[in-house]
Amino acid sequence: MPHTHASSADGDEDKPCRACSDFKTWAKTQNRVTFSTPGKNKQPPPQRRKDCPLDKDEIGTATWSFLHSMASYYPKKPSKTQSDDMTKFFNIFAQFYPCEPCAVDFQEDIKKHPPQTDSRDAFAKWLCERHNTVNVKLGKPTFDCSKVHERWKDGWEDGSCD
Amino acid sequence: MPHTHASSADGDEDKPCRACSDFKTWAKTQNRVTFSTPGKNKQPPPQRRKDCPLDKDEIGTATWSFLHSMASYYPKKPSKTQSDDMTKFFNIFAQFYPCEPCAVDFQEDIKKHPPQTDSRDAFAKWLCERHNTVNVKLGKPTFDCSKVHERWKDGWEDGSCD
Repeated sequence: MPHTHASSADGDEDKPCRACSDFKTWAKTQNRVTFSTPGKNKQPPPQRRKDCPLDKDEIGTATWSFLHSMASYYPKKPSKTQSDDMTKFFNIFAQFYPCEPCAVDFQEDIKKHPPQTDSRDAFAKWLCERHNTVNVKLGKPTFDCSKVHERWKDGWEDGSCD
Repeated sequence: MPHTHASSADGDEDKPCRACSDFKTWAKTQNRVTFSTPGKNKQPPPQRRKDCPLDKDEIGTATWSFLHSMASYYPKKPSKTQSDDMTKFFNIFAQFYPCEPCAVDFQEDIKKHPPQTDSRDAFAKWLCERHNTVNVKLGKPTFDCSKVHERWKDGWEDGSCD
């Protein structure tokens, strides 16, 4: 379900929230952009300038890209301090992720599945599984977590990223 | 200067590091992709599949997008705990950012300019200034930090993102 409103303690409750929605849903609440329906009219699809605030999907894509890259470059054998810090990082991340309903879901998910930060492989696999939990929730295909370093660090074995 | 090699304590030292370079520089180290020079040959520009590891620039863009969005949705008046947590978040982030030379630069920059997390406005401005420090280093245009919430949360005042 798309979330179209933010709920926060700082007075934004009644404003449509771009980061809680995809662009099309959000734009409709603004009554400014109309969308073409095939065979109904000839309007081109809406063109946005590139330096606009990100919608929920765009924030998600950017954030997963950063997180997976970080996981695949995480130390293979981190120190105890590094491991504890990375766990802390995710607990804080889950509080401040800029889409409140997504953040609440993620907080619940990592309560059930706490960060595995004892090694690069364990950490990247754990993060991949968290992403798959979101994929399932959104009806998207899941990813084969055995290939997570190919996807985010090394490129595919068949050389198709070289 | 593009960084073409990672330096880390876990055995990756001698492998060309995609996240330390832009794609074109990185690809050249692989001796697999050649690039067309105008008037020299007719090869099309390289086409990568979309699910390849991100290069340095792509990781940067994704990460700044996430961070600026987070800052513009940060509480207007955070609690002391929230403020302390966000400061901690950036200190940890600076350790694990998946491009080591970039991470080292960022660690030095936030030592000189510690996170300002006492309010949404102060935090977003501080982050914008950190980004501008990187922009200057890379020879990119700087951003007018008075417009940071328009860029990352509200859209431009002239309605061009609506």
